[in-house]
Amino acid sequence: MQKGKASIAFDHPPLICGAASVAGSKEGEGPLGQLFDLVEQDDRLGKKNWEEAESELQKKAAKLAIEKAGRKKEEIRYLFAGDLLGQLIATSFGLMELEIPLFGLYGACSTMGEALSLGAMAVDAGYADRCLALASSHFATAEKQFRFPLGYGNQRPYSSTWTATGCGAVVLESSREKEEKDCSFTQVKISGITTGKIVDFGLKDSMNMGAAMAPAAFHTILQNFEDFERDEKAYDQIITGDLGKVGQTILWDFMAKKGYDLSQVHMDCGIELYDSKTQDTHAGGSGCGCSAIVLCSYILPKMQDGTWKRVLFVPTGALLSTVSYNEGQSVPGIAHAVVIERVNG
Amino acid sequence: MQKGKASIAFDHPPLICGAASVAGSKEGEGPLGQLFDLVEQDDRLGKKNWEEAESELQKKAAKLAIEKAGRKKEEIRYLFAGDLLGQLIATSFGLMELEIPLFGLYGACSTMGEALSLGAMAVDAGYADRCLALASSHFATAEKQFRFPLGYGNQRPYSSTWTATGCGAVVLESSREKEEKDCSFTQVKISGITTGKIVDFGLKDSMNMGAAMAPAAFHTILQNFEDFERDEKAYDQIITGDLGKVGQTILWDFMAKKGYDLSQVHMDCGIELYDSKTQDTHAGGSGCGCSAIVLCSYILPKMQDGTWKRVLFVPTGALLSTVSYNEGQSVPGIAHAVVIERVNG
Repeated sequence: MQKGKASIAFDHPPLICGAASVAGSKEGEGPLGQLFDLVEQDDRLGKKNWEEAESELQKKAAKLAIEKAGRKKEEIRYLFAGDLLGQLIATSFGLMELEIPLFGLYGACSTMGEALSLGAMAVDAGYADRCLALASSHFATAEKQFRFPLGYGNQRPYSSTWTATGCGAVVLESSREKEEKDCSFTQVKISGITTGKIVDFGLKDSMNMGAAMAPAAFHTILQNFEDFERDEKAYDQIITGDLGKVGQTILWDFMAKKGYDLSQVHMDCGIELYDSKTQDTHAGGSGCGCSAIVLCSYILPKMQDGTWKRVLFVPTGALLSTVSYNEGQSVPGIAHAVVIERVNG
Repeated sequence: MQKGKASIAFDHPPLICGAASVAGSKEGEGPLGQLFDLVEQDDRLGKKNWEEAESELQKKAAKLAIEKAGRKKEEIRYLFAGDLLGQLIATSFGLMELEIPLFGLYGACSTMGEALSLGAMAVDAGYADRCLALASSHFATAEKQFRFPLGYGNQRPYSSTWTATGCGAVVLESSREKEEKDCSFTQVKISGITTGKIVDFGLKDSMNMGAAMAPAAFHTILQNFEDFERDEKAYDQIITGDLGKVGQTILWDFMAKKGYDLSQVHMDCGIELYDSKTQDTHAGGSGCGCSAIVLCSYILPKMQDGTWKRVLFVPTGALLSTVSYNEGQSVPGIAHAVVIERVNG
């Protein structure tokens, strides 16, 4: 059911019945290290280049999520997936052998929000009994794609974020044929979504993506509040993807001006993923794998154990390429919000 | 309603109530030149670089499609859009000012099929009363992205295709509140879709994308026949995106081995778009703008005037980047099929 200008409240909220996180070595050494399903000690995953390594992250996360859902790949009707690389090569080569119809997505670091949104729409509408939503990033492929060769050892300003190496994958299942109380295999559902538009405040610094994305997060969260007639108190946690410390400050300021206090209810996946004091990650983590692995390793378990009953998960993306950057374009942002709730409150 | 393994038959088939094509100068000189809504004589569209020119193509096509549908941008609930460039920069900068919630898509040259599929799903399910599906490509941005600088003047083999400069945009509208017979403003609907998986026959020649994509087109068309229990005779035309002459031959051969004769019923947008004898385009046109502008300028009018009653529109994509190509990867393909029918038969 349409809600307001940009939201949907699902009539048959899709259930999250499987989730898996595969993380790199640095992520494994961070505060959430013990929570990931798999931590790769070799960031190249035994492959001959970084791109193949990222594809391997996707393959492992997808298979593990399907396995944890107690399913076989033949039971997954659609894939909704993406990554940060030009022409989505991590996805194309990572998911090929699953042989599942694929919708390739690009929403920069908001891709997990986009994948969950479209996946939930497909499941709620009855187009699929089950689908898989996933997103990945890899520090080395992203540095090569967006910045400098690793060997160059470029200096990174304190506003910059560290692209997470990891892939998070979620199996969504229809609740149509089931009574909610029968869903003992899962305690978590997607009850609604708010889809973001492109928001551009004119920032041109690709080393400060938190600031570039904060206005988009602000816009989407505000739209969610308006469409669902809620405020920050309606959520146990409002969780952005990868604003980092700079972006978080901006978001809180913007929200405060509208009369909302996020300081007690907001967390950012990028800030949680690393210990910035010891891991030299500066403003935090980023990349579409960042929010995806934090969702699967930290957020969903906290909902399953009842710590949180309703969260607003808002992956945030910075829309740029080296071409647009070098041509002097700004860095617009986009953020897609997903309302995740416990099935039985 | 789910049909078979990878298809949906829509319960409330979305109506195509507006479509626009904006094409470049070379496309304007081709056999379909008179049919486009706009032909740009300056392929840079007065902008300072090719990427901004491609963004401008999107902006013009989107606005014109909305105008032709008799709507305002505020009445469009979602955008489903993509292009061929790394990180979808043509889309991000082209559609920003519309301020419509955006799902960014990447399916290489199959993107128009992906956009129509997801857009139709959203409209059929009641998530949107109206949405816009579009895809663009530009010869100069694509050459820069995938091949050589234009000034280098590289030699192109006969198997290569010419990336079309253009953008096609379609407004989809819900048929839920309407009797089909009341739809005098449109004669065309999307009755179903078949979503493609990644198909890789191991080809590694990025100058022969028709051959790389033909197996994906073959797979999706066959899946459509199986899911809908149809054969080639069920369609007045089966229309692939940009297989070109090489890919067409392969597709016909593959289909013949399964007992289907496509020779009387198949056309390829890439073959139609240019006169290869006089325009030096070799195997045909390509790019996600290719099938999008041929759909809007040639296919939809032929359905509106009753020449064709049911067509299978199958945009085809080659999944590669210069990174994957230079690392020795193959070029997998993907194809998404859309069943387009006249409302009143």
